[in-house]
Amino acid sequence: MIMIQHLSDLSAALRRQPARQRVAVICGRDAATLEAAGRALDEGTAEVVFVGDGEAVRRAAPGLPARGARFVDAATPAEAAARAVALVREGRADVLMKGLVGSDVVLRAVLDKQAGLLAPGRVLTHLAAAQLPAYGKLLFFTDAAVIPYPTQEQREAQVGYVVDACRRFGVEQPRVALVHCSEKASDKFPHVAGYAAIKAAAAGGRWGNALVDGPLDVRTACDAGALAVKGIESPLGGRADALVLPDIEAGNVFYKTITLFARARTAAVVQGATRPVVLTSRGDDATCKYDSLCMALLLAAGATRPDENP
Amino acid sequence: MIMIQHLSDLSAALRRQPARQRVAVICGRDAATLEAAGRALDEGTAEVVFVGDGEAVRRAAPGLPARGARFVDAATPAEAAARAVALVREGRADVLMKGLVGSDVVLRAVLDKQAGLLAPGRVLTHLAAAQLPAYGKLLFFTDAAVIPYPTQEQREAQVGYVVDACRRFGVEQPRVALVHCSEKASDKFPHVAGYAAIKAAAAGGRWGNALVDGPLDVRTACDAGALAVKGIESPLGGRADALVLPDIEAGNVFYKTITLFARARTAAVVQGATRPVVLTSRGDDATCKYDSLCMALLLAAGATRPDENP
Repeated sequence: MIMIQHLSDLSAALRRQPARQRVAVICGRDAATLEAAGRALDEGTAEVVFVGDGEAVRRAAPGLPARGARFVDAATPAEAAARAVALVREGRADVLMKGLVGSDVVLRAVLDKQAGLLAPGRVLTHLAAAQLPAYGKLLFFTDAAVIPYPTQEQREAQVGYVVDACRRFGVEQPRVALVHCSEKASDKFPHVAGYAAIKAAAAGGRWGNALVDGPLDVRTACDAGALAVKGIESPLGGRADALVLPDIEAGNVFYKTITLFARARTAAVVQGATRPVVLTSRGDDATCKYDSLCMALLLAAGATRPDENP
Repeated sequence: MIMIQHLSDLSAALRRQPARQRVAVICGRDAATLEAAGRALDEGTAEVVFVGDGEAVRRAAPGLPARGARFVDAATPAEAAARAVALVREGRADVLMKGLVGSDVVLRAVLDKQAGLLAPGRVLTHLAAAQLPAYGKLLFFTDAAVIPYPTQEQREAQVGYVVDACRRFGVEQPRVALVHCSEKASDKFPHVAGYAAIKAAAAGGRWGNALVDGPLDVRTACDAGALAVKGIESPLGGRADALVLPDIEAGNVFYKTITLFARARTAAVVQGATRPVVLTSRGDDATCKYDSLCMALLLAAGATRPDENP
């Protein structure tokens, strides 16, 4: 597998996949979503079905039907979300994407116990990839938006998802840092006590060929020089592929800080449902939405449906 | 008062002060500390006394006595820390600076109930100033290193310290953001419930002419465009002078991320003792140590000693 070092390589990577994935876009009438989904259509990286707001979509982008887009009607945003989720359950869509609709509406449909997309015991979490001018490769991170304070079980699920994502992007041996404000565990931070068990599980092969280390701070995770100055040995060697941030406050600060101050380009998905969900926010531009859609399509292409017999 | 927009303006600001402040450097024989303290001596921005490691200091920088440095002997690092603290208590030093000695050793001397520098009921907290190429002014933030999960009382103290610091840097009406991963309070985050009381206290004049708002995320605190997209009204207008981060995990992620990925230049002090303490770490370079010393000297010049009669 070819390694994806820049988010702009995603499009080519998708075209190398054996089959095109299909995205169900919920209320996708806003300009950025239309541009992102339209680009995927035109580049042949996805099949697109717009669920809900069909008239508004066609008015905003009259050429879409001729470009191959399909449409499913819905009377309300909630109905649109439910119909899009149903398309995924029926095996007729592979990725869910949010348009001009509240995240709560989408998540309610995804989390619906009867008709939703969350298998029992699965953990829904936010996973992003950042392209940072000051870092030599993509840096994945979790969770900036969904789980407030991960339990040990949730953190283990996060490690699993980031390792999977790194692999899908061509990283053979993902290096995952469990982040903390210090390299030492202490009684003041109960969540850090669980990092040792995660490292042990990783060493035991739970996530395949992956290096997991922590506690490390962002600098000792991503800067070999900082490691050396502190005299710390880490199998990651200051070259993390992924940061598992301690909680949503730290995750969100990381996300907002790199996009605002470090000229980061980011893509993000919500993992844990049977298929990836693109839940970008109103403020995200078309590039971010396109990159996020591509990331979701790539992850979907590598996923096994829990409801499928292998 | 002239506004200090860059950390490199600190030196000139200190020379405009009516009196030179005096720094007691604990075990300052490492190259970066020697360079920082020596520069303050040579620029006339501080008087410097090296406490402990005198022989090693004079060997590493033989010219120091001729440049005006003074020396106090001590047999051990702990004794050096205690003697430096005593100099401050006796009114013979205004700032404490850590050299090649553990932070725990310095803090133990500062926190000593009998002979230390912490008045009863005072809160010790970390306060830093960042110069970010992507932001038009200095951005203060707290706390990246000392208080794990601030209580309401500690957070109020943090607001007071950052407002004070902004004023000392010439910001007439400091804009302080209480940071959270969302602009909405929720039951899942008990600490955010207290933000409203802090805003009310600020509006009531508790910290003088200052604007305090939150919850805001890093982007809505520091980017007017992000505010507009989300349709949020904030008196800060997306131009925060200071971020009060929710806890040490978020604070440390911010600190490490801006220095590693956003080319930030930073200065940091520990506030809350009777005088500022410079507690930079081994990995910090001479510029960071010098900037931090200058910041401490400026804050000390504006402080009233709790043990002095006004």
